[in-house]
Amino acid sequence: MAQLADTLKSNYDKLMDKSKDAVTIGTVQSIISWDMETKMPPKGIKLRSQQLAKLSQILHRMITDPEIETLLSDIRKHTGYEHLSEQQKRNVYLVRKTYDEQTKLPEKLVVETAKQQAIAVDIWKKAKAAKDFSMFKPELEKILELRKQAGDILKEVKGTKTSYDALIDIFEPKMTSETISEVFSELRKGLISILRKCQSASKQPKAGILDRKIPFDIQRLISKELARFMEYDVDSPTAGGRIDETEHPFTTGYYDDVRITTHYYEDNLASSLFSILHEGGHAIYDQSLRSEWMFQPIGDSCSLGFHESQSRFLENIVGRSREFWQYFYPKLKERTGEVFSAVTLDDFVRSINQVKPSKIRVEADEVTYCLHVIIRFEIERDLIPGNISVAELPDIWNEKYRDYLGVKIENDSEGVMQDTHWASGYFGYFPTYALGNIYSGQILSKMESDLPHWKSELESGNFKAAKQWLTQNIYLRGNLYDPQELLRKVAGEPINVKPYLEYLDEKYSWVYGY
Amino acid sequence: MAQLADTLKSNYDKLMDKSKDAVTIGTVQSIISWDMETKMPPKGIKLRSQQLAKLSQILHRMITDPEIETLLSDIRKHTGYEHLSEQQKRNVYLVRKTYDEQTKLPEKLVVETAKQQAIAVDIWKKAKAAKDFSMFKPELEKILELRKQAGDILKEVKGTKTSYDALIDIFEPKMTSETISEVFSELRKGLISILRKCQSASKQPKAGILDRKIPFDIQRLISKELARFMEYDVDSPTAGGRIDETEHPFTTGYYDDVRITTHYYEDNLASSLFSILHEGGHAIYDQSLRSEWMFQPIGDSCSLGFHESQSRFLENIVGRSREFWQYFYPKLKERTGEVFSAVTLDDFVRSINQVKPSKIRVEADEVTYCLHVIIRFEIERDLIPGNISVAELPDIWNEKYRDYLGVKIENDSEGVMQDTHWASGYFGYFPTYALGNIYSGQILSKMESDLPHWKSELESGNFKAAKQWLTQNIYLRGNLYDPQELLRKVAGEPINVKPYLEYLDEKYSWVYGY
Repeated sequence: MAQLADTLKSNYDKLMDKSKDAVTIGTVQSIISWDMETKMPPKGIKLRSQQLAKLSQILHRMITDPEIETLLSDIRKHTGYEHLSEQQKRNVYLVRKTYDEQTKLPEKLVVETAKQQAIAVDIWKKAKAAKDFSMFKPELEKILELRKQAGDILKEVKGTKTSYDALIDIFEPKMTSETISEVFSELRKGLISILRKCQSASKQPKAGILDRKIPFDIQRLISKELARFMEYDVDSPTAGGRIDETEHPFTTGYYDDVRITTHYYEDNLASSLFSILHEGGHAIYDQSLRSEWMFQPIGDSCSLGFHESQSRFLENIVGRSREFWQYFYPKLKERTGEVFSAVTLDDFVRSINQVKPSKIRVEADEVTYCLHVIIRFEIERDLIPGNISVAELPDIWNEKYRDYLGVKIENDSEGVMQDTHWASGYFGYFPTYALGNIYSGQILSKMESDLPHWKSELESGNFKAAKQWLTQNIYLRGNLYDPQELLRKVAGEPINVKPYLEYLDEKYSWVYGY
Repeated sequence: MAQLADTLKSNYDKLMDKSKDAVTIGTVQSIISWDMETKMPPKGIKLRSQQLAKLSQILHRMITDPEIETLLSDIRKHTGYEHLSEQQKRNVYLVRKTYDEQTKLPEKLVVETAKQQAIAVDIWKKAKAAKDFSMFKPELEKILELRKQAGDILKEVKGTKTSYDALIDIFEPKMTSETISEVFSELRKGLISILRKCQSASKQPKAGILDRKIPFDIQRLISKELARFMEYDVDSPTAGGRIDETEHPFTTGYYDDVRITTHYYEDNLASSLFSILHEGGHAIYDQSLRSEWMFQPIGDSCSLGFHESQSRFLENIVGRSREFWQYFYPKLKERTGEVFSAVTLDDFVRSINQVKPSKIRVEADEVTYCLHVIIRFEIERDLIPGNISVAELPDIWNEKYRDYLGVKIENDSEGVMQDTHWASGYFGYFPTYALGNIYSGQILSKMESDLPHWKSELESGNFKAAKQWLTQNIYLRGNLYDPQELLRKVAGEPINVKPYLEYLDEKYSWVYGY
């Protein structure tokens, strides 16, 4: 019996060693990719592609190593299996899931997809610049076909109802198109109702506040101040973070080495302010994972949706609140000299909360943002099973933008080609953006009942209690649960659109005085 | 016969694929290490060590893959082997060399050495800060013992006369302690003679020129100007280089992605000027290798000695010449406002060529620099065979500094513990620094006869012809030859100290007017 237990332990440890190897190579890929976006001399791209391809191959071999199958089945068959802890079982489950999925996808399909991704992204850039969807169309068709094939295979492996569900599951485990359809339908109605109220309100935010010129160096100092507020340490001798500058903001990293980027525009302070808060939300999640679980499958964040709930929490629920700006507006004024001297706090907060339907997702306000996401989801839901074709995409896209947002798309670069996701083959990714917002509303609602004073504490710049709550309830739980299970543990209820809509309605009734 | 040739080709191609994989992982290590020195948040060190250890293991397995042995012996036995090109044979030779050396070192010794390196470097830092050699002594003894063991094994593999020769061969293939002893003995005499002449000259460079305050941003602009002069592109949309800032300057990179660092001190312009030129010399070598050979063993630089010959060529032969400053001094004056307005060109050039025996190698002038290196070589030559012990090092060190340089070492931090090399187990490395200087003299001499006007062209900032000459004669030859063979091809003669001493004597007779 003791010897049997020893075998189990030794097999489990071997499995965790293999997990550690794979995670380590994954973090190398992250750094190498971050370097590519931020520091690499332009000429280095060919060598970098070679490096990334080789690392991908090494990683793929690690996670499909046949020894993993042996270890997994020995562990599962062992009489001591049932006595493993919840964490250990979850680790075994997660290794099994990755192994099954990765081994069932034929290497030919994986390689072809990787190549077609690179080609499609390249052509997408050119087609976008040329405003010519017909250039992009054949490449999008190819990558879509490859992802459909993957979806069909993964549907069997994962046992999902549809191929699209299998693709969604990659980004948001166990989430289904059916559930998303339901919650998005309610979300859409609620958002459009709030949008109408804002649009017809007599009180409108003042224009011309956020496009005032702020020098780059001042904006950089403001970014550091925001980082300090979030306790995202980028300066001290024990710092575990960085802020860099790229065309499009992003976050990458793992535990003690997490990095965010932003983009500074002299006449668009909001862009850097809210991207720092957004990416900072991602960053503090990654930094606050449970250190004992580092390198284990459970030592990861829960899902893209949960990650987005944190970035949106920091960006919007905190960063666009009147309470936060009561604290931060004097600091901003101090840094920016006379720029905002004649602008009241209320006028400033209203202007950062202006609602205005627009064509571009990444520039959207809080009320219309999810409508952009819903449009993409509705299209994907029809595209994957082949109910609509790639050729029809521009017309369908433009029609939905007219119906949901009331905007007229003038060309496909500001329309169907605005985002890179589909070129990369990331079908099933978009819904997580809106799910994150929905989760953030439920998280907020529970936090308000647990910490009734958390928001008024923001007025004195105190985010500590709230961060601690998020850490306890979300960050330290790592990847121990699938997202819907974690949501139940955190919010005490299944997915529910109401708290998010109530939060928005309450805020915007103040902003627009409706 | 056709089929046999096909087998040879296919085996050779497989071998080159394996070389490509190994080189690729090597370049990943470089980027990851560069990031560690320049950008990594301090907290990331633990994760970074894990990444580097894993990459080392992957690389070690790649270059000791038993399939390499099969491929190599099949290629060698093949009747078509003799018809392989010179490049192909050299590639086979270099893969064989690495394979034999790496497989003969027991994995236990390799792992123990890696661990002890990390420990010894860590303790070295602490001991240096505490000025306490007794702290460092046991760790240095351990790493020395491990390197002796490696030397003993490699002596058999490489067939060198001594274990120390086997260690030297790692850094400067085929170079021997015997040859180094001979040339260093002549070098030492020559340098001491020039040093005496400088010291007793009535004309001495003016003091107080190089410690004038130059703001960091101005120094950064000057660095970019120096890079432009060398055609080390760091700014254009097709740039293949970078300049960053670290405590100690270094160069890393491969072909299209090469990176140098420097350190700016407000009151020490010379430090950034000459480190940019020095590292720039390394960088243009790495950037100018033959692109068709990329990822092959021959697509590498020749040796550490040859690399150093290029960094010293740019730093000293070009960068401390009156001709270069005739071009660059007006630019420097333009950037620095009034700082040098009362300093003549000649006074400036004399001040950057001041000779003054000092305690620290990296701060040494051109005349005394190699004396620092010779001291280290003489010590290593006795240390590896056990003629002297680690305990005796401080006394021997201090005595030699008194005898060769006439300086009194006050403590071991400015003495035997000043450099990190021995803590890292790099015995056999130091001689390459002086060998590089000797090579640079021979290269200069040949260049002068091929391009009589190269130096006067520097007066108008034209380095093109000289760079082209270096590219043709050295850079494009990659690792096709061992260093002594390359030297013969470039300079038309075996290693020879005279040209370097003549160059120094001629320059310093002008500087000191002796």
